[in-house]
Amino acid sequence: MKITLAQINPIVGDIDGNKEKIIAAAQQAKGSSLVVFPELSLCGFPPYNLLGYTDFIERCEKAIDEIARRCDNIPLLIGAPVRNTSGKGKPLFNAAVFLHQGKCQIFKKKNVNAYFEPADETKILQLGCMKVAVTIGDDLYNIGDDEFLMTNRIDDFEEKPEIIVNLAADRFDYQRAAKRREILRMTALKHEIPLIYVNQVGGNANLIYDGGSMVFGYMGYVVKSLPFFNEEVATFDCELFISMKREDNQVIPSKMELIHDALVLGIRDFFNKQGFKKAVLGLSGGLDSALVIALAAKALGPENVLGILMPSQYSTDHSVSDAIASAENLGCHYHIVPIKTAFDAFEETLKPIFKDMPFDVTEENLQARSRGVIVMAISNKFGNILLNTSNKSEAAVGYGTLYGDLCGSLSVIGDLYKTEAFELCRYINRDKEIIPWHTINKPPSAELRPNQQDTDSLPDYSILDAILYQYIECSKSAEEIIAQGFDEAIVNKTVRMVYRNDFKRFQIAPVLAISPKPFAMREMPIVKK
Amino acid sequence: MKITLAQINPIVGDIDGNKEKIIAAAQQAKGSSLVVFPELSLCGFPPYNLLGYTDFIERCEKAIDEIARRCDNIPLLIGAPVRNTSGKGKPLFNAAVFLHQGKCQIFKKKNVNAYFEPADETKILQLGCMKVAVTIGDDLYNIGDDEFLMTNRIDDFEEKPEIIVNLAADRFDYQRAAKRREILRMTALKHEIPLIYVNQVGGNANLIYDGGSMVFGYMGYVVKSLPFFNEEVATFDCELFISMKREDNQVIPSKMELIHDALVLGIRDFFNKQGFKKAVLGLSGGLDSALVIALAAKALGPENVLGILMPSQYSTDHSVSDAIASAENLGCHYHIVPIKTAFDAFEETLKPIFKDMPFDVTEENLQARSRGVIVMAISNKFGNILLNTSNKSEAAVGYGTLYGDLCGSLSVIGDLYKTEAFELCRYINRDKEIIPWHTINKPPSAELRPNQQDTDSLPDYSILDAILYQYIECSKSAEEIIAQGFDEAIVNKTVRMVYRNDFKRFQIAPVLAISPKPFAMREMPIVKK
Repeated sequence: MKITLAQINPIVGDIDGNKEKIIAAAQQAKGSSLVVFPELSLCGFPPYNLLGYTDFIERCEKAIDEIARRCDNIPLLIGAPVRNTSGKGKPLFNAAVFLHQGKCQIFKKKNVNAYFEPADETKILQLGCMKVAVTIGDDLYNIGDDEFLMTNRIDDFEEKPEIIVNLAADRFDYQRAAKRREILRMTALKHEIPLIYVNQVGGNANLIYDGGSMVFGYMGYVVKSLPFFNEEVATFDCELFISMKREDNQVIPSKMELIHDALVLGIRDFFNKQGFKKAVLGLSGGLDSALVIALAAKALGPENVLGILMPSQYSTDHSVSDAIASAENLGCHYHIVPIKTAFDAFEETLKPIFKDMPFDVTEENLQARSRGVIVMAISNKFGNILLNTSNKSEAAVGYGTLYGDLCGSLSVIGDLYKTEAFELCRYINRDKEIIPWHTINKPPSAELRPNQQDTDSLPDYSILDAILYQYIECSKSAEEIIAQGFDEAIVNKTVRMVYRNDFKRFQIAPVLAISPKPFAMREMPIVKK
Repeated sequence: MKITLAQINPIVGDIDGNKEKIIAAAQQAKGSSLVVFPELSLCGFPPYNLLGYTDFIERCEKAIDEIARRCDNIPLLIGAPVRNTSGKGKPLFNAAVFLHQGKCQIFKKKNVNAYFEPADETKILQLGCMKVAVTIGDDLYNIGDDEFLMTNRIDDFEEKPEIIVNLAADRFDYQRAAKRREILRMTALKHEIPLIYVNQVGGNANLIYDGGSMVFGYMGYVVKSLPFFNEEVATFDCELFISMKREDNQVIPSKMELIHDALVLGIRDFFNKQGFKKAVLGLSGGLDSALVIALAAKALGPENVLGILMPSQYSTDHSVSDAIASAENLGCHYHIVPIKTAFDAFEETLKPIFKDMPFDVTEENLQARSRGVIVMAISNKFGNILLNTSNKSEAAVGYGTLYGDLCGSLSVIGDLYKTEAFELCRYINRDKEIIPWHTINKPPSAELRPNQQDTDSLPDYSILDAILYQYIECSKSAEEIIAQGFDEAIVNKTVRMVYRNDFKRFQIAPVLAISPKPFAMREMPIVKK
C-alpha cells in the first residue's frame, strides 16, 4: 500500500488556486491509497476572519465538490472549513475531508480556536482493511505534562487505529522542528502505531511554515521525510513502517541555517503571494540593513532590490563606503540621497516654534523621519515595497523612531536579537564575504548625533540580549534576572524600557516570526502601570 | 440585608493602586453584607500577557492578603487571577475571591480565554442564610440560541441559588448597554432570581468599559442602577428585590451620547493612566480633526490641547479659517506651520531620481508625510501626545497615508464611519456652535491636489458607509450587498479596497472601540488572495 504526503504551499483565501494545487498534487499521486494534505489547505492557514463570510465557505464547498469530481479515483484527505449543521454552537468545524469515489467523510478537530466549534466525535477512517486515526494539528499531541493538549488520546477513538495521520499547519520557530519530531516520535512509540505527519510550507505575512513532513515507523524512527521550506509531493510504501533503520534520514539544519531559510521564504512569499516583485530599503552602512539586503537579494534576486543611502552630517565616511559595498557585493542597485536639504527645511520650518531650544531626541527623530519620507516616496513612485530593518533588541527597548526607521511593510529581522543578527551575518559569510566584514565588526551606531554609539544609551548587546531573553522568552521577573547575577541597575532599566515601549511595537509592520516568542504573539496591554 | 456594588476603574497592572481603590471602596461600604467588584479588578482588565509573569501573580496574592487583613469585617468579592495548584492544565484561573473574617473562597470562571484554565466546579457562596451563585463575565449568559454561551446554567449549581452575582468586564459598544440589559433581565426572569451585575468602568488603550452596573429584582425590573462611564460605589437594600416598580430607573442614553461619553472617557484614561497631560493634533479645517479637537478639549481641558495647522499650496482659504475657528471656539492654542519649505526640499532632494516623472500619489503622500514629521517633532519637543484623526470609512478603503495622516498614538474616531462622525458633530453642536458649521457642511476634501474632493475617488459617504456596514458589521459578501440594490461596480470596488488595505490598518495606532466590529477585533490575513 502506498501513501502520498502533499506538502504544499497554499495562499490564504485563494481557494481556486489552492484547489488546482491540490488537484495537481493528487494527480501526481495516482495509484496511492491515500494522499494527505495539510490543515485547512483548501483555504490556506490561518484564514482568520475570512471564515466569517458565507460566500467564502460556499466557495470552499464548491471547490471540494470539484476536487471530488476531478480526483474521483484518488483517495484524498484535505483540510477545509466545514459547516456545523447541528444548529448548536459555532457555525464551522476545522475538518479533514476524506474524498473517494463519491464518498465524503468528515473528521473534525477538537482543540480549536475561537473560529471553530470543537469536534463532538472521534471517528476512525476505514481505508481498505486499514483503520486510520485522522487527527488535525495539535489534537495529536497527547503526551507530556501538558494535560491541556491531551485532547485526542488514542484511547478515545471508537476503535484502536493502525495508522495515525496528522494534517498540520504548525508554524516555524528555530526550536520547533526538533521539538515537534520528539513529540511525534514519542506518540508513535507510546502507541506502537506508525504516524504520518503532513505540514504546510510557506510564508503568510508574519507566519512562516517550514514543512518538514515526516513518516514514523513502528519503532519511532523517521522512515520518510520531506524537505524544510520547500513544497514536495512524495509517495512511500507502507512496508517502510517496519523499517529497522537506526538513524533518521531527516537532518535538522543548524539554528542559523533554519533562520536563514525561513527568512528567505518569508520574504519571497510576502512578495509573490501579493504580486509584488521589487523591494527597497534604507542602507545605513550598519549591520542590520546589510543583513536585510542580503536576505532580500537571495529571496527576490539582486536586480529586484534597491538600496537607498541617506547620509547626514553625522554619518561617518565608512558608513557610506560600507553601505555601497553591501549593495555592490550582491549586485543590487543603490542611490545616494543626502537628507541635509530636508532636515534643514524642517529646522527652518519649526524655528518659529522651537526658537532656541537645545538639540535633543526631536532632532534625532527628525533625521530618521526625513529618511522615512524619502524612502517611502521612492517606494510610492516606483512600486518597490519597503523592507524594515530593525531588530528585536531595538524593538524591545524602543530604540528606533516611529515613522522613521520603523517604516516598512515587512520587518525582516524584527524577531532576531542583535547578537543573533551578528551570528546570521557570519553564517551568510561562511564561505566568502557577502556582507562587508567591516560592517559586522565595527561598533553599532545610529549616527544621529556626533560620535554616537549604541552603547551610549544601551548596555553591551551581549548583556542586553541575555537580559531580554530571560525577560521575554523565559518570562522571568527583574528580581529573578538579577538573582541570576546580572547588574541590578541594568536589569531594572532594561525591563522598564521593554514595559514602556509596547506602544511602538504596536505600530510596527508584520515581523517575520522565527523565535518561540515573537512580540506579535506576546499580547501586552499598551496602557498599564 | 445590604449589598454594595463597587463600579471601579482599575488600571491594568497597577496592583498596588487597584488594591488601595478596592480597600477604599470596601471601607465606604461598612455594614454591607457583601461588596462586589468587577472581573479581574485587582489586576485590571485585560491583563493579557502580564499574567505570564510569576511576580505579577505573587503581587496579586500579596495584595489579596493585605485586602483580607485590612477589610476583615467587610465581606468582599473581588476579581483576581488565582493559581491552579492541581498540576494539570493552565497555571491560572480567572476567579472571584470571597474574603471575610479570615475566610477565603475561590469561585472560578468556565468560559475562559487562552490565559486561563476553565473552572472544574460550580460552587455556591453561603452568605449568612442566603445562597449566592457567583458568576464571572459571560459565564452568566445562558439564554438564547447561542449554545456556546450556555456555560453556567443555573441548573449546574450544586444547590439552587437565591441570588445571582456577576463580576463583569464587558467592553462598551453603542449597542451593548441595551443588549446586555435584555440578556440579564431574561436571565433573572427565567430563573426568578434577583441578579446583581457589576461592570468595570474606564478606558484601557483601545477598549472602553462603560460600567452601567445594575440590580434586577424578581420581576426582572432594574431596581438599582449605576451611571455609565463613571466610577460609583452604591449600596442598596435587598428589600428592593421585591419592588414592583413598572419602569426601569436606568435610562440608556442615545447612540451619539453614548459614543461621545465613551470617546471622552477613552481619551482621558489613555492620558491619565499613562501620566500624560497634553495632546497635539493636526487641524486641517476638515470635519474629522475638528471633531477630535472638540473631544480632546472636553477630555483633557482646552489648555492641554494644541492644534497645528499645516497648509500647503492646495489648501483653500476656508480650510485655514475653519481650522482656526475650531481651535478658537474651544479655547485651544494653535500654530500655523506651512509645509511648503519641507515639501520643496523633498522635491529637490528626489529630483535626481524622479527626474520628470509626473505628479502622482507620491507627491500627495509627500505632503501628508511632511505634516506627519512636523507634528511628531512638536510632539517630541514638548511632550504632547499626537492624536490621530482618521475615521473608519477612510481606514476601510485605505484613504490615508501611512506615516502621514495615519501617525498618532491614539486613534480617536477610527471606529466611526464618516456619516457617524457627521452625526457626532451635530450632537456636540446641539446647543451651540462648538464645531464650526461651515466645517460640517462643506464637501469633504483631502486637499492634496488642486480642487480635490473625496468624491473624486470615493462614492458619496452615505453610500460608501452603507456598503461598508454591510460588508464589515454584517459580514455580507459583495454578491449579497449587490442583491440589496447597491450599484455593482461601486460595491465591487469598495470590497476590493477593504480587502487590500489590511496592511495599512495593521500599522494604525490603537483605535478607541465603540462599534460591535472595530477593525482591531476583525483579525484578517494581510497576505491573501
